[in-house]
Amino acid sequence: MSLSEFELIETFLSRLGEQRDDIVLGVGDDAALLRPPPGLELACAADTIVEGVHFPVDLSAEDVGYRALAVNLSDMAAMGAEPAWALLALTMPRADQEWLRRFAHGLHALAREHGTAVVGGDMSAGPLSATLTILGFVPAGQALRRAGARTDDEIWVSGTPGDAAAGLAALTGALEAPPGVIAPLIERFRRPRPRVALGLVLRGIASACIDVSDGLVADLGKLCSASRVGASLDSTCLPFSAAMRGAADPVKARRWVLAGGDDYELLFTVPAGTDCVSLGRSAGVDLTQIGVIESRASVRIDGEPAAAELGHGFDHFAGTPRRPG
Amino acid sequence: MSLSEFELIETFLSRLGEQRDDIVLGVGDDAALLRPPPGLELACAADTIVEGVHFPVDLSAEDVGYRALAVNLSDMAAMGAEPAWALLALTMPRADQEWLRRFAHGLHALAREHGTAVVGGDMSAGPLSATLTILGFVPAGQALRRAGARTDDEIWVSGTPGDAAAGLAALTGALEAPPGVIAPLIERFRRPRPRVALGLVLRGIASACIDVSDGLVADLGKLCSASRVGASLDSTCLPFSAAMRGAADPVKARRWVLAGGDDYELLFTVPAGTDCVSLGRSAGVDLTQIGVIESRASVRIDGEPAAAELGHGFDHFAGTPRRPG
Repeated sequence: MSLSEFELIETFLSRLGEQRDDIVLGVGDDAALLRPPPGLELACAADTIVEGVHFPVDLSAEDVGYRALAVNLSDMAAMGAEPAWALLALTMPRADQEWLRRFAHGLHALAREHGTAVVGGDMSAGPLSATLTILGFVPAGQALRRAGARTDDEIWVSGTPGDAAAGLAALTGALEAPPGVIAPLIERFRRPRPRVALGLVLRGIASACIDVSDGLVADLGKLCSASRVGASLDSTCLPFSAAMRGAADPVKARRWVLAGGDDYELLFTVPAGTDCVSLGRSAGVDLTQIGVIESRASVRIDGEPAAAELGHGFDHFAGTPRRPG
Repeated sequence: MSLSEFELIETFLSRLGEQRDDIVLGVGDDAALLRPPPGLELACAADTIVEGVHFPVDLSAEDVGYRALAVNLSDMAAMGAEPAWALLALTMPRADQEWLRRFAHGLHALAREHGTAVVGGDMSAGPLSATLTILGFVPAGQALRRAGARTDDEIWVSGTPGDAAAGLAALTGALEAPPGVIAPLIERFRRPRPRVALGLVLRGIASACIDVSDGLVADLGKLCSASRVGASLDSTCLPFSAAMRGAADPVKARRWVLAGGDDYELLFTVPAGTDCVSLGRSAGVDLTQIGVIESRASVRIDGEPAAAELGHGFDHFAGTPRRPG
């Protein structure tokens, strides 16, 4: 049976995620109606993922749905915001109901996990891409920002960045290793874990924060630029996962950790001496200090200026994606 | 000079529209931070426009920017909401700075007119499309909805629907007439006027409301379906613009009025006897009664069931767009 655009939205994109009682009216009218909690600031972000640009053409529908939401949840995490509502605008070449069902399934599971409801849906014919807008809450004045890092602050990162970039390289044939070694890396690309709990824990503690979407050095550069400071990284402190050590030679591995970005880990700064290990424990993620903030405006690694290609990260308009591998 | 994605957003997509003092943090961090007014409901909607689907490939950058926002402002109008903030996710094949400047210009002017600020921006490489998410306010319980029309309510429409569809036909060569006759129709497609002021005036008065994005009969069908009623239209009451009368024969004109949708007029119902002419005057737009709500669940025109092709409107997944002409 062929369904209209309106029916497709009703069938597949309504009732996704958590059923929240602050939703007055969800998917199905000209707009959703929501009841923001009093006294809180509203955090909102929109991100698009495009087939062949942000994910390979053969990525499963479930993974596309998961990733579309994950990249936005990561923006909430980076602000220390609690996600609540999402609006989804989906563009696809033809109304493939089975694909839609699986896409919705991948998105739904992650949305439920984070107490987030899809309150608006739009569908268009066109090349496959998904734009998700997320709305969340943060107590007034407590949001984490890119600006705020101060000289001598410590620089920390969550998890093991670079794994997702290596996983993508494995998916596209640019990295070869035994399946058992590669599988955890691919999983990191398919299912990045947005660090929402960590963002909440860092409120009032981190002096600055950003999520690593474009690459560790590139995003650290943005944090430094916003904070009007520089950074010095110690490459001997970089966190490598066991999978990364097993799958890639040290040169490639180092480049992935420094310039891969699809893991959506949090990169943040804290005053020297902050007990980040305990913070990480309470948020359920390992944290590693990788450097310190300096007053001079540049990002250096082991005392040397970071190579330009590391700082570019993943720029969609730079021609060939500047991913390592 | 080649700018990065980050720099393109900073240069072209920040500071668009009104500078509002309820914006704590705008474009440039991982999320925007906003201060919703206490006690109001938040109305939000997202819509994508895709080149070659929602607008022809040679539409000017200014018009694309204008239309991207206009279709969303129309959603606010249809809910009786006051627009406030917008997030823009733009996908384009290459970083064409001149196109971006002009796109931003077209969007900026309309945003200012409606007191709306662009608070978030995202840019991706990919086929040209723009997804805009709009956020606005409405007093609790006062939003206009599709559900609510009751038997014997009058059905009214703003302006002269169909003009934009005729204008699009003129742009694509499907309608030929002297330039002076066609120009106002093309203008209606290029620059639809979102009926925000009318939506505000209709609060507490209209029993149901929808914007005509897919076609008058198609959208009336949605309103009726949500309200669990039917409708009877009187074709002798349909509002035809002078331009439409001059450019198209009566058969084509009737089809455009009934099934064209790109004008973004408001279609709404009111209790019999409501002084809509005065309401229209205060909102600065002509209003026309075109029918009445009935209890039996169908849309009829002059007593006959509406032809199926009128009711489909513009369905992006229905193969050839079902536009008349």
